[in-house]
Amino acid sequence: MTASLGARIKAEVEAWARFSAEDGKLTRVFLSPEHAQVAAAVTAAMTAAGMRARIDAIGNVVGRYEGATPNAPALLTGSHVDTVRDAGPYDGNLGVALPIACIAELNTRGQRLPFAIEVIAFGDEEGVRFPTTFSGSRAIAGTFDPAVLAVRDSDGVTLADALRAFGCQPEDIPAETRRPADVIGFVEVHIEQGPVLEREGLPVGIVTAINGASRFRLSVHGMAGHAGTVPMAGRQDALAGAAEMILAIERRAQADDTLVATVGQASADPGAVNVIPGRADFTVDIRAPEDTLRQRAVADVRTEVHAIAQRRGLTVTMDEFHHQDAVACDPSMTDALAAAVARCGYLVRRLPSGAGHDAMAVAALCPMAMLFIRCGGGISHNPAETITAEDVNAAARVFLEFLEAGLPLPAPRPGTNQD
Amino acid sequence: MTASLGARIKAEVEAWARFSAEDGKLTRVFLSPEHAQVAAAVTAAMTAAGMRARIDAIGNVVGRYEGATPNAPALLTGSHVDTVRDAGPYDGNLGVALPIACIAELNTRGQRLPFAIEVIAFGDEEGVRFPTTFSGSRAIAGTFDPAVLAVRDSDGVTLADALRAFGCQPEDIPAETRRPADVIGFVEVHIEQGPVLEREGLPVGIVTAINGASRFRLSVHGMAGHAGTVPMAGRQDALAGAAEMILAIERRAQADDTLVATVGQASADPGAVNVIPGRADFTVDIRAPEDTLRQRAVADVRTEVHAIAQRRGLTVTMDEFHHQDAVACDPSMTDALAAAVARCGYLVRRLPSGAGHDAMAVAALCPMAMLFIRCGGGISHNPAETITAEDVNAAARVFLEFLEAGLPLPAPRPGTNQD
Repeated sequence: MTASLGARIKAEVEAWARFSAEDGKLTRVFLSPEHAQVAAAVTAAMTAAGMRARIDAIGNVVGRYEGATPNAPALLTGSHVDTVRDAGPYDGNLGVALPIACIAELNTRGQRLPFAIEVIAFGDEEGVRFPTTFSGSRAIAGTFDPAVLAVRDSDGVTLADALRAFGCQPEDIPAETRRPADVIGFVEVHIEQGPVLEREGLPVGIVTAINGASRFRLSVHGMAGHAGTVPMAGRQDALAGAAEMILAIERRAQADDTLVATVGQASADPGAVNVIPGRADFTVDIRAPEDTLRQRAVADVRTEVHAIAQRRGLTVTMDEFHHQDAVACDPSMTDALAAAVARCGYLVRRLPSGAGHDAMAVAALCPMAMLFIRCGGGISHNPAETITAEDVNAAARVFLEFLEAGLPLPAPRPGTNQD
Repeated sequence: MTASLGARIKAEVEAWARFSAEDGKLTRVFLSPEHAQVAAAVTAAMTAAGMRARIDAIGNVVGRYEGATPNAPALLTGSHVDTVRDAGPYDGNLGVALPIACIAELNTRGQRLPFAIEVIAFGDEEGVRFPTTFSGSRAIAGTFDPAVLAVRDSDGVTLADALRAFGCQPEDIPAETRRPADVIGFVEVHIEQGPVLEREGLPVGIVTAINGASRFRLSVHGMAGHAGTVPMAGRQDALAGAAEMILAIERRAQADDTLVATVGQASADPGAVNVIPGRADFTVDIRAPEDTLRQRAVADVRTEVHAIAQRRGLTVTMDEFHHQDAVACDPSMTDALAAAVARCGYLVRRLPSGAGHDAMAVAALCPMAMLFIRCGGGISHNPAETITAEDVNAAARVFLEFLEAGLPLPAPRPGTNQD
């Protein structure tokens, strides 16, 4: 193997970026004409790699590379081929192209593994077109809710109708659910979308967990007043109170290495230069690789903002509007990935994933692990997203090493549901 | 004198509130039909009080009550009859109705003073209709800039045309400027628009100075990033930096009794719940009764926001977009007012005015003083503005006491300009 495998994978992903709804930008939403185009390209690449490829009932492209024995349990891998608007080319797509290219290597050598490999190109991870997400990975995992078929895009098209227009049979979705006995696990390769690997000079990292997240809207209420006539001592300035809360939230998050908290939106009312704000609103997004860690932080933040409000004669409400528990990666699969990283000569860096991934949904079905690839400046969801062919090559070497080493097949799990 | 004088003044001002562009709300802008209606009512009240009334070239209603000798120098008084949108009834208007009612008392008694009294109902203090303000008081003071006649309202009507439609001759505005020898001084009665008198249980207060103000726009620039993937340690969060700056500004203002600083507007960019803000913008309004005090605070704030930005790896710009120096009240006139307050049996409370007033403009012509009346909750520029008949009565007693005690006529000043 030479650096050229990484360069070929990178070039393939970049070629897919031309399947876009917008000239000069990459925008490719679920079940769009561009989605059909990339699905055709993925199918072609899978076929060329010796895989049997099909588009399933939820619009996933599924390619299967049989193992040494027919109908062996499969290692699932893959990622998503839908994008945000004005996206970078590597988010998701790289995790489809890389395993296909690795399987092409095996196929060229005539090499079969003790297990089959299925590469799945999920179509709905970004949730841009419909008010839903993870449709493809949930269908595989058996957690797809049929009620979701009735949701509509901004043109009023239902998910069911969009699937039919794409050539899919929504009524067959339940049949896509894998039997636990047929799968070994799921491993997703993805760009980090963060700055940690770049900062530490590492091409790849091993994900420990996909962070849980809680999102809140906070409203601080005080007393509006004339900026010139109300002395400082008598003010109930909602924005000054919010500022103190924002700093308290930052300080709380800094106290735990793996915790992050972000205030992304903020506003003051009435919002005039010469009026003391009577109200201030802001959002908080708190994430951690462990739910208890996140819950403790949320409780601390709640206590702290109320204390600040009380001290300042303000009131505050803190309402959760989104919440997703953390999903831990499977220790055995993760260790196997880490061992492959080490055998390839790289330092093993374990880190949580701050962003959500299809792997979260597949974790309801089977053991799951993730391999991160360094990206430039931690930038993603942006045309300025970059990776290097060398890093892709490193990740492909690790992935092949991981496949060839064989997997410690985990004991079958009693159920498919995970809390 | 009984409490009924205060009740009559309050009722008169409330009756004027029906001259409004909006049903059920008080909105009365410069040179509007409603302005013509209130001017007619003011003229009628002045005439009934024994004054000679006219509408001058800039739309002021000017009423003159002659002194014991004809053409004696005049004490000027008055305030404005224009309002903000959805205003309270007392802001400005009370300072017109109260002196007229006091003069009516003198007139009923057949009492003449050693000086004339002119009550002026200014038409343009709030600056709502045209992008200019203090037109009436500047015309009197000789600081009206004729170039302002070309400014337009939102319908494209120039100030000159609006004046003509009101029945005024803009070319005669320069002739409205008073000769310093003809005026003794200017005293304005106004609601406090702040909470100090209410908090201290006092009906009236003596203004020491009208605060100077500086207004700035601040832009904090950091690095946007994914709320989940960028660890706290590597963030350049513009909003967290702005929050620290907002608290530093509050702390600096609290360090001086008479200083106030207000952050009234704030926003974060891109403003998504799951994106670390790459930019945050906010405004600061800093006011003080002395310019050096305000300038020191501005310099301290500038130093502090830059230090915070540097410590956090951010950049910050701080641009002044408005600035008005403080105008001190005349010590002799202020002492005469204070003596009247004391003789009426009230505690003398001296306080700066945080808001601007016509008196600022008239101060370019002659000595100036202001009498504040307590208002409910410090609320103004709002239909919830309140005063009590008792407090108005107290202010009327003080005003009459001030007039009857005679004024220490100040030495004529060399020029009409004040820096």
